[in-house]
Amino acid sequence: MSVLSAHQSTLLVVDMQTGLLPAIHDSDALLHRAGRLAQAARLCKVPVIATEHWAQKIGPTHPELVAHIDQVLHKTHFDATREPDFLPSLPKQRPKVLLIGTEAHVCVLQTGLGLKRQGYEPILVTDCAGSRKPSDWLAAQARWDHYGLERITAEMAMFEWLDTPANPVFKAVLTLVK
Amino acid sequence: MSVLSAHQSTLLVVDMQTGLLPAIHDSDALLHRAGRLAQAARLCKVPVIATEHWAQKIGPTHPELVAHIDQVLHKTHFDATREPDFLPSLPKQRPKVLLIGTEAHVCVLQTGLGLKRQGYEPILVTDCAGSRKPSDWLAAQARWDHYGLERITAEMAMFEWLDTPANPVFKAVLTLVK
Amino acid sequence: MSVLSAHQSTLLVVDMQTGLLPAIHDSDALLHRAGRLAQAARLCKVPVIATEHWAQKIGPTHPELVAHIDQVLHKTHFDATREPDFLPSLPKQRPKVLLIGTEAHVCVLQTGLGLKRQGYEPILVTDCAGSRKPSDWLAAQARWDHYGLERITAEMAMFEWLDTPANPVFKAVLTLVK
Amino acid sequence: MSVLSAHQSTLLVVDMQTGLLPAIHDSDALLHRAGRLAQAARLCKVPVIATEHWAQKIGPTHPELVAHIDQVLHKTHFDATREPDFLPSLPKQRPKVLLIGTEAHVCVLQTGLGLKRQGYEPILVTDCAGSRKPSDWLAAQARWDHYGLERITAEMAMFEWLDTPANPVFKAVLTLVK
Repeated sequence: MSVLSAHQSTLLVVDMQTGLLPAIHDSDALLHRAGRLAQAARLCKVPVIATEHWAQKIGPTHPELVAHIDQVLHKTHFDATREPDFLPSLPKQRPKVLLIGTEAHVCVLQTGLGLKRQGYEPILVTDCAGSRKPSDWLAAQARWDHYGLERITAEMAMFEWLDTPANPVFKAVLTLVK
Repeated sequence: MSVLSAHQSTLLVVDMQTGLLPAIHDSDALLHRAGRLAQAARLCKVPVIATEHWAQKIGPTHPELVAHIDQVLHKTHFDATREPDFLPSLPKQRPKVLLIGTEAHVCVLQTGLGLKRQGYEPILVTDCAGSRKPSDWLAAQARWDHYGLERITAEMAMFEWLDTPANPVFKAVLTLVK
Repeated sequence: MSVLSAHQSTLLVVDMQTGLLPAIHDSDALLHRAGRLAQAARLCKVPVIATEHWAQKIGPTHPELVAHIDQVLHKTHFDATREPDFLPSLPKQRPKVLLIGTEAHVCVLQTGLGLKRQGYEPILVTDCAGSRKPSDWLAAQARWDHYGLERITAEMAMFEWLDTPANPVFKAVLTLVK
Repeated sequence: MSVLSAHQSTLLVVDMQTGLLPAIHDSDALLHRAGRLAQAARLCKVPVIATEHWAQKIGPTHPELVAHIDQVLHKTHFDATREPDFLPSLPKQRPKVLLIGTEAHVCVLQTGLGLKRQGYEPILVTDCAGSRKPSDWLAAQARWDHYGLERITAEMAMFEWLDTPANPVFKAVLTLVK
């Protein structure tokens, strides 16, 4: 029962790759929101980690996002936590992992469940996650609920990370909310 | 497991200010329902408290509502419970705080979670709360559910506050339901 | 965790009165489904009890339903369980009370919560309950969920009451499902 | 809290019969997705069992599905677990039973609840289950949730069964996802 705080959060960008995004429902808006959230994360000193799935086949993370990402991890499992280098690469002392990306019902979902099993608190940012079919995106949210996991929107995260009006990046983050 | 009772309730109007309302989805209908609910609250002797966020920038509470409000509290935090004078200003012996206002996923949500942490029972009045984007309004409800908090509509509150047909304001409140 | 059984069920028709139904959203279809469910209840020996709210003002139960009702109880409270003669009139040994009628978010909801407090298992038949506004009908379902109460549809009830294909009313009930 | 694994799963195709499917909402798409899921099950060595309800009246399982089914069981109860030969016919050591078919709110739902009572973990594949009326399909999902049961989509199952990219049927299953 608490709002997010920036110092406890990591933002995980799952497989937002050039070869997959065009097939995702409403991907332009999704990419736009994800970019804003990643920028806000950086302003609030929230680490931004990305995964790329078989990058040699599916391509790199979308160029609009790359500038806002601290580290890219490669994976071949749908569930990133099964890659040996994934969990060791996550920032320490940050139990809350906000997940965005594609597809909401495959790699985002499986990675979220994997993180939960490892003791993290995965949080789905619903309006920055997508699937090719909206019905799969909705079903992913229902399954997230089934396991008692939390889901939020990009703006919830941004306003909660800000914490107080004394935050020096207050105005800079607000300009990202449109 | 119980319906509301007027003597246990406070109505909290969050940031329904002139500078914010025009950006809110379907704000005219929202304002109309909120006004009716505030009038019913007054008839049922439910205290009506309002918050205003940075009033010098965002403007005062909408004039249609002001006449039905007992007290206005200023705030600069999104979560009103973090203002030193907020909790002491809430009426005593009234554990149930019905929240209405804007934005549903920011100040209304954060204040609701803050009230819960302080031992209150926050209740979201969904059809009197709004966000700029309907998707954020819906996501706020899902998060309310995630934390096991209750959500109702304006009419539920009005009919539950009435309690018995012997209530002397019975007819007056019914005329507000249209 | 069980399907319904006819011998444990009562069907409660809440305030389906001539003076209220015309204001209810999609009331013709609602009335049609309610009539079918009441007929199925009678075939399956499920008692059908109706409430009427201020009948002298709001009129009697709709004539299409009256023939399928065993007993009509008058009430002036929204929550029927607050009328002294209501609970004593309910059939004994039937813990499951299926609620249909209007309005879903006022008398149906308040009576359901009252029944739960009295030890019954209220079950909302969502497609036989209505409100003037669809948003109130939806919110009633969410509140039903909040309290951990069950909700079903008319067809679920009918097929579960039938129990086995050896039921002598099997064909008669199936003809009601269209 | 875990993704599916093929060796723990059985796919149960409920009553997808020629005499019932034409009345089901959006049945062509339903049949298509069900066929793909059954093919993926076979590739992943997940047993595929089908029920047929009164086959002499309602007809056989749809020919598009028959080729992908290991065993057909006849039933006259809505809840298949009430047939004496049903539970003994289920593959052993496979606690997770994925249910698809028709109608979502009658035979699929009742069989799911029956399986849960018998110690299985029933999982509804929502986009491969259907009812004549979409409102009944939605209500079936809500009741599934009410009992704490899980629901997924066909693609979730297929990607989770695959488990690792080293799976020799990896490419064959991916071609079924379109």
